[in-house]
Amino acid sequence: MSNARTVLERCDELAAISALPDGLIERTYLTVEHKAANELAAAWMAQAGMVTWQDAAGNLCGRLEGGHPGLPALILGSHLDTVPQAGRYDGILGVMIALEVAARVRASGSALPFALEVVGFGDEEGTRFGATLLGSRAMAGTWDPTWWQLADGDGASLREAFTAFGLDPDAIGSAARRPQDVVGYLEAHIEQGPILEERGRALGLVSSIAGARRMLVTITGRAAHAATPYAARRDALAGASEAILAIEALAPGLELIATVGRVSAMPGAVNVVAGSAVFSLDVRAASDEVRDAGLETLLAETERICACRGLSMRVEHTHAAETVHCDPLMTEALAHGIVADDGQPLSLFSPAGHDAMAMASLTRVGMLFIRCAGGVSHNPEESVLEEDVAAAIDALHAAVLHLAATYSTDARPADRKMPAWIM
Amino acid sequence: MSNARTVLERCDELAAISALPDGLIERTYLTVEHKAANELAAAWMAQAGMVTWQDAAGNLCGRLEGGHPGLPALILGSHLDTVPQAGRYDGILGVMIALEVAARVRASGSALPFALEVVGFGDEEGTRFGATLLGSRAMAGTWDPTWWQLADGDGASLREAFTAFGLDPDAIGSAARRPQDVVGYLEAHIEQGPILEERGRALGLVSSIAGARRMLVTITGRAAHAATPYAARRDALAGASEAILAIEALAPGLELIATVGRVSAMPGAVNVVAGSAVFSLDVRAASDEVRDAGLETLLAETERICACRGLSMRVEHTHAAETVHCDPLMTEALAHGIVADDGQPLSLFSPAGHDAMAMASLTRVGMLFIRCAGGVSHNPEESVLEEDVAAAIDALHAAVLHLAATYSTDARPADRKMPAWIM
Repeated sequence: MSNARTVLERCDELAAISALPDGLIERTYLTVEHKAANELAAAWMAQAGMVTWQDAAGNLCGRLEGGHPGLPALILGSHLDTVPQAGRYDGILGVMIALEVAARVRASGSALPFALEVVGFGDEEGTRFGATLLGSRAMAGTWDPTWWQLADGDGASLREAFTAFGLDPDAIGSAARRPQDVVGYLEAHIEQGPILEERGRALGLVSSIAGARRMLVTITGRAAHAATPYAARRDALAGASEAILAIEALAPGLELIATVGRVSAMPGAVNVVAGSAVFSLDVRAASDEVRDAGLETLLAETERICACRGLSMRVEHTHAAETVHCDPLMTEALAHGIVADDGQPLSLFSPAGHDAMAMASLTRVGMLFIRCAGGVSHNPEESVLEEDVAAAIDALHAAVLHLAATYSTDARPADRKMPAWIM
Repeated sequence: MSNARTVLERCDELAAISALPDGLIERTYLTVEHKAANELAAAWMAQAGMVTWQDAAGNLCGRLEGGHPGLPALILGSHLDTVPQAGRYDGILGVMIALEVAARVRASGSALPFALEVVGFGDEEGTRFGATLLGSRAMAGTWDPTWWQLADGDGASLREAFTAFGLDPDAIGSAARRPQDVVGYLEAHIEQGPILEERGRALGLVSSIAGARRMLVTITGRAAHAATPYAARRDALAGASEAILAIEALAPGLELIATVGRVSAMPGAVNVVAGSAVFSLDVRAASDEVRDAGLETLLAETERICACRGLSMRVEHTHAAETVHCDPLMTEALAHGIVADDGQPLSLFSPAGHDAMAMASLTRVGMLFIRCAGGVSHNPEESVLEEDVAAAIDALHAAVLHLAATYSTDARPADRKMPAWIM
């Protein structure tokens, strides 16, 4: 069986580990499904000759030593958790590809000048506790102690979930790697957009990862009986609907990707005009400047709509991340890998966040995108081609070998105008 | 203290019996708040010399016998339950006014040719179990046994709630009155609209009560990551928002009152484009024909919006009631009462449903509207003028005396082209 086929079948096997019935996928942080996915992937890592462990944040780690034990590690990875009603490739495919690359390196019999680690992060999506990238932030050493109070939909705190999973919250610091122990981080991930498909390319090279801003917008009007004539209404849900449509209409012209994924109306009775409505807003762009300027326009328009309707509006900012630019050396290594398999690489910006964003505060990061059908993700219809997966395995493997070659020959960057990359 | 002041103070006292904190009002069927409200109102009934009991559906009843015990009863009433975050007058004011009228009749010392009953229905709003008018439908003998399976938000069935409240579900039939035991039903209620205020009138005479149609509209698109470009999206929530706005824009021209009071998006994550969205739709009009024709237009427009966006749509009809026309004799009696206090009565159609709708299948019904500030109801801002309440007490009292006069003199309808009104 080809490596790519193995990868796809493993994605299928992991998809069966789900909190939802009927083939739907949901696997969130620190659940029984998380534990089962870690155990299954650990078995595959062990098959590939790796030493495996679960770190203090519940991330699954597998390690192949390099030329001698204890060398700094090049980390390949992505996440094993999912959104509700997820597809089977977002995150998971990157971990399985990394695993195949490690298996190839092992099978080649020749040692690398660094250790090679594969990591399956426990939380990237933030589905269960709202905050995202908990797994990679623990590894990057940017864990925020205020997170312990975060609660899931059933009221369980993150601290309680740690204990229930068998983890010691007080040991969270031990999940953090030291920069000197890490060579870099490479991640393969489905594109979650249609550009590679449109251009007829299997793989893409990520230039930067957009930092999203997220907020809750609360619109307040006046609850009233459904018999209330229109002139006497101050309908918060009609106002929210107008705002949601305006955001959709304005965003492309502002070079934004804006999403309203959640909405509710209060009191929420079938025969009561909504007194208030809340919706979430997620805004991304190629740069922080474009994003912030566009967001200002969207909120001003929402404000105008509210004023026209006698409604008031409140914005609660819940998340903001800066755009992360991929590291030149890691990107160059990936470019080498892509060239070998797919011709001159196409450079893309990632509107979606990734574990590489968190890892960038620990080490140099690079990312590889894999074409996905219709650009669809976070949906059961997520789909990839076996030949693209094969290309991604080849490219990531080639990138690892390229890094090994430049690392072992100590090709230092002075003549290439790049900074030293092992601090 | 004036009768009207007493009525308003009693509404304040009942408002304090609530499941919500901070002065917000919610009092739903078969709860501890329902029991407490019944006990308080029963004490006031007893003060007015009435015999009181709770019927097999949890409706509070008080009775003043007429010239001799066991005569058929004229029933005055409304409901004591509320929506969430309710005002203090919707329903409650009608019961308290009825109670004052009974007190006046008692105080006058002269017996009526029929018994006089005051009823505080336990459920009109349908807040807890979804189906409305449970109290008055039990009394009207139109209880539907399929309701026993209805569940509240905590999963308790209506049957379980009956038992927990101390009622015997199997005795529900005993709440039903026999038509020959009832003279008619009169209800005073706040207008829940702005027409009386606009016309400068304290009271209005209700011609008919619109039957609402209610449904859930489910729009299905495709869930996708928030990074998905617009061209690749099939955003169910954007489609629902466009439909909600179209319904608001089209309804007045179709002579409809349409309300979307509830909405949700699935999966409902901040970073996922909604794969589906559900909203409720409540439609009312002056006649069933206008309502049904208008609804067809609204749904066709929603269908068109969905087609443009690559979305599909499904409608689940959850409720339909026919328009109820008030009885000529009862209406004439109320008109006499209003003339005495407020000049030639203004006739109004009620877009809101009322207990009188259910009672109409048992007996002749008549309704009186009381001006409320801004037409606002189902909201803490519900407000009435003390002088209007005084006028309503006078008018309802006068209507009772008018019915007593025509009843005792046996003024039969042959010469007035009205049907005999005691079967």
